[in-house]
Amino acid sequence: MNTGDDFEHLSLHISPDLDTVCYTLAGIANPDTGWGLQDDSFVTLRAVDELGGASWFGIGDRDLATHLLRTTRLSRCETLSDITRDLCRRWGIVHPVYPMSDDPVRTLVHTDTGDTLAFQEYFVHQKFQPVVTSFEFKGARNALPVREALEKLKRCDLVIIAPSNPWVSIGPILAVPGYQEVMKDKVVIAISPLIGGRALKGPAAKMYAELGIRPCASAVADHYRDLITGFVLDTLDRDQLEIIQRWAIIPLITNVIMKDRQDRVRLADEVLRFGKTVLNRSL
Amino acid sequence: MNTGDDFEHLSLHISPDLDTVCYTLAGIANPDTGWGLQDDSFVTLRAVDELGGASWFGIGDRDLATHLLRTTRLSRCETLSDITRDLCRRWGIVHPVYPMSDDPVRTLVHTDTGDTLAFQEYFVHQKFQPVVTSFEFKGARNALPVREALEKLKRCDLVIIAPSNPWVSIGPILAVPGYQEVMKDKVVIAISPLIGGRALKGPAAKMYAELGIRPCASAVADHYRDLITGFVLDTLDRDQLEIIQRWAIIPLITNVIMKDRQDRVRLADEVLRFGKTVLNRSL
Repeated sequence: MNTGDDFEHLSLHISPDLDTVCYTLAGIANPDTGWGLQDDSFVTLRAVDELGGASWFGIGDRDLATHLLRTTRLSRCETLSDITRDLCRRWGIVHPVYPMSDDPVRTLVHTDTGDTLAFQEYFVHQKFQPVVTSFEFKGARNALPVREALEKLKRCDLVIIAPSNPWVSIGPILAVPGYQEVMKDKVVIAISPLIGGRALKGPAAKMYAELGIRPCASAVADHYRDLITGFVLDTLDRDQLEIIQRWAIIPLITNVIMKDRQDRVRLADEVLRFGKTVLNRSL
Repeated sequence: MNTGDDFEHLSLHISPDLDTVCYTLAGIANPDTGWGLQDDSFVTLRAVDELGGASWFGIGDRDLATHLLRTTRLSRCETLSDITRDLCRRWGIVHPVYPMSDDPVRTLVHTDTGDTLAFQEYFVHQKFQPVVTSFEFKGARNALPVREALEKLKRCDLVIIAPSNPWVSIGPILAVPGYQEVMKDKVVIAISPLIGGRALKGPAAKMYAELGIRPCASAVADHYRDLITGFVLDTLDRDQLEIIQRWAIIPLITNVIMKDRQDRVRLADEVLRFGKTVLNRSL
């Protein structure tokens, strides 16, 4: 998991990506917001606001317990991966979830005004309105990958890059030395987060445009070009098949939009089957 | 205000005495518990408990906002006295409230088992059941008094020591170099927290007994002997008048028990009038 958008806020260490993935796997995520817990209350955040504190980052009352425990344990020099393992056990999550590194990495957003923004400042506080000129993953070069995550990756035959934001969600993970190197020997398949030139949510398309790249599925394939063997794109993007194949990337065209659990299971099944085909072909 | 029972808990800096006094002055204190805010909820604390975190210290959801803001500002190297001033303003408190020091002082409780306990561990977690052998105010000797508090004290004619715990609530303040020195030139009046040999709440009487001193009003007068000119004791303790007068301390016998606001106003009035008499007598 990306920890480049972790940050310190209200004296808490917050790991937004870890939390969203864990809450989702535990079946307790808020389905409407894309962050936080279902049916959470916001008594503390309202009180913070009334006292003149920063309330722009949404923290529910139950969500706050996660941040308090994680921050407390980090302050005792426990690792983020150990803490994540324990929290996952508490939440009844059977899937292994790893932060990309136990070392701090911070995604910085350089903008056209010359300002550099911490990721959550850009993403949540300023609602990704500033125009991006480049990203920086501060600390990534010297960060160690989480050992168990790297070992697990080494034992994989197939790696699937989910339709997440290539710049700020996948990018920080790939910037930690180790993961890309291991993936070079694997069959890697990426799923396009851009469909018909747009991201279903978030600023991926906006980022591509601001960085001078036409936002489209093939731009994502190009992004991962050195890493991937296969690429999954939406039926809407059939016109980009030719260019992707020209790069010797094996395509799968399907419905990439996931509206509900059934869609997610269906897409996962299709991509896994596609992965096995690609795997057999590359043997 | 005593900050010897401040502590770090769940990654938060908590100032229990400051909070109780401020919440009370603001009229938002929980009248039943003696801590926390009226009508507060406990969603986060329950969630902390469910995740296996420490839930023995009561923190309500709105109360938590105070701790988050204070901790955030302390981590930016702002002083506790500046933060307290701002919070008081937010709460609409007109009285000046000062922490005794901006430097950390920690009350430690040495017990008969040889264990040394942090104050809240002793007081809240172990419900003041361990037997006390002595107290230590760690850091007090090198702590600086808050300048405004000391200046204000210097300008006072009369100092009233409230019927608070002499060992662990007043003791830490007096242990900070400066306050006692200034008080030596003042008319100081203490009000006994022991009535009929018992404290209305808390472990004051238990502490006296464990330290080998019979818990009674005169023991409190003896405690403050070098500091006080006058002493206020309950009508129940009329029998101790003689010993107190033998120490050349001027007594006021009245009803010291405060059950409601009316009682508090009445006692304050009486003590102030008594103070003026003592002041005139010592001129």
